[in-house]
Amino acid sequence: MGKVIWHITMSLDGFIAGPEHSMDWAFDTFNDAQPNRLGEEVMKETGAILGGRGWYDAARASYDGVDGIYGGRWKGPVFVLTHHRHDAPADPKATFVSGVEEAVATAGDAAGGKNVEIFGANVARQCLDAGFIDEVVIHLAPVLLGDGVRLYGTPPAPRVDLERTLLEESRNVVDLRYRVRRQRVAG
Amino acid sequence: MGKVIWHITMSLDGFIAGPEHSMDWAFDTFNDAQPNRLGEEVMKETGAILGGRGWYDAARASYDGVDGIYGGRWKGPVFVLTHHRHDAPADPKATFVSGVEEAVATAGDAAGGKNVEIFGANVARQCLDAGFIDEVVIHLAPVLLGDGVRLYGTPPAPRVDLERTLLEESRNVVDLRYRVRRQRVAG
Repeated sequence: MGKVIWHITMSLDGFIAGPEHSMDWAFDTFNDAQPNRLGEEVMKETGAILGGRGWYDAARASYDGVDGIYGGRWKGPVFVLTHHRHDAPADPKATFVSGVEEAVATAGDAAGGKNVEIFGANVARQCLDAGFIDEVVIHLAPVLLGDGVRLYGTPPAPRVDLERTLLEESRNVVDLRYRVRRQRVAG
Repeated sequence: MGKVIWHITMSLDGFIAGPEHSMDWAFDTFNDAQPNRLGEEVMKETGAILGGRGWYDAARASYDGVDGIYGGRWKGPVFVLTHHRHDAPADPKATFVSGVEEAVATAGDAAGGKNVEIFGANVARQCLDAGFIDEVVIHLAPVLLGDGVRLYGTPPAPRVDLERTLLEESRNVVDLRYRVRRQRVAG
């Protein structure tokens, strides 16, 4: 399989969603008329998406759910990591899986040699803890949100050192790509 | 007076200090042999520094306190905002002040037409809440810390929209300068 890429839009103060999973600040940031070059590149390299349940529920509540990924242009498989598969809604567009190892393996098989893209803070934290994340792609929005869903789960989390491999700007947003260098396991 | 500039080194996940105010990750990031261009520019534009008590105590504990600012090259006035002036240590290099308005005004007078530079999350949050911050200068370090002192105080804090005015890279670090566009007061 390809790489596992954690792909996020983040406020300058480290939130990937505002209070109550609001994403209006990110929609303020992006603009369909001018697609983000790095975002497009990541999409083209992706063979399957693995989202968390928090991301999935927020996507259904705030836009078109799985149908809204990449403005509706994403046509590949979408997996959702959940602890409660019996609670999962009936959604022909998403496959619910339990257990982070199984989820990454399943998405990796479905990706057919392309990358697996991770959406959501909780699933990303689990993947980082298990050593599964190869790269982090961040669109840094010019706003301090002050509250919301943190990029890197609930502290304390182990330190992860990164190597920057790309830096671009698209208007007010800064686009960053990092390779995971090593993880320092806490304790 | 000049502008009020909030100047920080930050981890990618939004911490300005690690657990127990540790700064080893930032010293990993910088290297005296190759000064950071934007950092030097900010120093030259600065007429006075206003730090918070948290910043001051951490600086005394982890390096040379006020004498360690800019690797010992800072020779101008340093003010420290504190609620407990009677608890302040005897330090001929620092002037302790109470009340954020008085502190910014006092530092502004001392700056003699140059900028006031803000060090520390707590004092910056108070200055932002009072509308005193004109610019934010951030050195973004390639590390997820997972825990520590947050950039933007304790949530919830009001949203602040920014306009990016500069983007540079110095090795693995990304240097950013933003103008405070408007603050949306919560509630």
